[in-house]
Amino acid sequence: MSLQQKYSCGCRGVDVHSHIVPGDLPAYVGAKVPRDWPSMAAAHACHRHVLIDGGVYRTVSDRCWDAGKRMLDMDKQRVAIQALSPMPELLSYWMSASDALPLLQYLNGAIAQIVDESAGRMVGLGAVPLQDIQLAIRELERLMGTPGFAGVEIGSNINGAPLGAPQFDAFFEAAEALGAAVFVHALRPVGKDRLVGPPQLVQALAYPTDVGLAAASVVTSNLLVRRPRLRIAFSHGGGTLASLLPRLEQASRVFAPLRDALQASPVEQARKLYYDSLVFDSAALRYLLSSFGESQIMLGTDYPFAFREQSPVQQIESMNFDEVTAERLIYRNAQKFLGIS
Amino acid sequence: MSLQQKYSCGCRGVDVHSHIVPGDLPAYVGAKVPRDWPSMAAAHACHRHVLIDGGVYRTVSDRCWDAGKRMLDMDKQRVAIQALSPMPELLSYWMSASDALPLLQYLNGAIAQIVDESAGRMVGLGAVPLQDIQLAIRELERLMGTPGFAGVEIGSNINGAPLGAPQFDAFFEAAEALGAAVFVHALRPVGKDRLVGPPQLVQALAYPTDVGLAAASVVTSNLLVRRPRLRIAFSHGGGTLASLLPRLEQASRVFAPLRDALQASPVEQARKLYYDSLVFDSAALRYLLSSFGESQIMLGTDYPFAFREQSPVQQIESMNFDEVTAERLIYRNAQKFLGIS
Repeated sequence: MSLQQKYSCGCRGVDVHSHIVPGDLPAYVGAKVPRDWPSMAAAHACHRHVLIDGGVYRTVSDRCWDAGKRMLDMDKQRVAIQALSPMPELLSYWMSASDALPLLQYLNGAIAQIVDESAGRMVGLGAVPLQDIQLAIRELERLMGTPGFAGVEIGSNINGAPLGAPQFDAFFEAAEALGAAVFVHALRPVGKDRLVGPPQLVQALAYPTDVGLAAASVVTSNLLVRRPRLRIAFSHGGGTLASLLPRLEQASRVFAPLRDALQASPVEQARKLYYDSLVFDSAALRYLLSSFGESQIMLGTDYPFAFREQSPVQQIESMNFDEVTAERLIYRNAQKFLGIS
Repeated sequence: MSLQQKYSCGCRGVDVHSHIVPGDLPAYVGAKVPRDWPSMAAAHACHRHVLIDGGVYRTVSDRCWDAGKRMLDMDKQRVAIQALSPMPELLSYWMSASDALPLLQYLNGAIAQIVDESAGRMVGLGAVPLQDIQLAIRELERLMGTPGFAGVEIGSNINGAPLGAPQFDAFFEAAEALGAAVFVHALRPVGKDRLVGPPQLVQALAYPTDVGLAAASVVTSNLLVRRPRLRIAFSHGGGTLASLLPRLEQASRVFAPLRDALQASPVEQARKLYYDSLVFDSAALRYLLSSFGESQIMLGTDYPFAFREQSPVQQIESMNFDEVTAERLIYRNAQKFLGIS
């Protein structure tokens, strides 16, 4: 079924934030298995455990790898197109690059296969080993020459280093030149030592904290001034950036060193980044729109994990935007970000 | 001049967020001076350097200790009452409690003196050594028996420990019993390793990040359910909490361990905390009001530091609230929080 047909039958969402886990993971072929090498084990019906570092990291359903079941869910959600990115914990920046590369290439192969089974309803956001920038660029070049890939998913930090740090500039230069969409997802976040409560608070609180700081580092390093054609998006509505931005803007007026470091105002730069709509609240989504602009927010769900938006298209439609704005949020901005039409 | 007279002449703001630094700091009297023991040195006209750990931490003006000059500025800002809290870096949690106590008592004495010189236009938020809970409670008891004190300022973390951690409960129990207002200010924040740019980004980005996580820890530990009469406020509009809250609310619906840990919903609990209005943006302030409620937001300026709100009363008046709401934001909520009338 073509995208146009899907749109005409009301199934018009383009979801930039959905994840895959392959049905199986490859055995390690080197001399000494890294401690964090992931593997899969059987669980209850239609589910498998992802084992990392000797424990169950997450138990996932076959929606993570079964294109047919995903498409049935997409019909229910009225999502025409899904962008597929790896479950972030598989990005493997903490291994040696030579260990990580075959694992990430296996992941990218799994993404390519699901995309191939989707009859045009999915596109890939692959994985690259950013612990070695040159290797990451080579894998990005390979991906962008492979049918079905729109770009890559990267972590909100690379082994603790912020995305605005100078060592990542060559990678962003390559992404801009290749027209690769870059989707930034929370990963191994800062702030875990500030949480009081069950471990799910890492996802609830530390994830958006890390994404917000990642986006802020992209702003304060002038990335979009230096690379104006780069398309880069931040998960979970940009996390805490919407709260940080007015204070950062005022700081740039007050502090000469910050004013001198910025080549355009923080607000102006933040309005060149993309963000998904995954904030679970209409007032919060309206605040994102006023902060970042109606051209920059795209539908995102975190499908198929439990902590997701269940009715993404309906949620936006229920907010009574004019149709031009609704179309932008539901699919047009995502098409532009992903470079699809 | 009475508060009532001030109100009647248009000078009606109650500013919960202003800082003091004493004109001088005491010499260390023990055996070995702690590395972080602060001292003062002369600077240019009307200014002094605060020296910490061998360097200039900040150069401050005589507005930090001169009640008369402060009151002239308050008239210009149309602020009737200022709550005075120490420059947070002086809170000294990182020293031994026995070293910190005399320093904090000196600070509290300086606050009492400025309050005394203010003819009723200032109230104190003192300092207590939270690295030793029992000592902190004893100093809180002493303060609340001293004329001019409304409560205390505490850091957004205590040597890295989140405010919702169990070890601080006895302190909050005492604060509730004594009717002490607790003003939480950003201090030595998390996330500094995620910043790219000049050091002022610590204040611009890491401060609100730490405050947001501090407020979240108070929510997830059910502090206001357990201590319903406690009055606790968060600086800088609660930092990133307004961005975190909808996601935390959704997480509490999705994850059973989090749902079980919470004795009231995150949104319900967050609407029992107080926040200052220091977000430098009308849209951000409106979003705070919708997130936290019109009864919980109070005027705050960060006076007399450079990174402050210059026209706090005018800024709120310019937003065209109805008069009941404007009065709440400009002074009524702060009166309630501070326990003054």
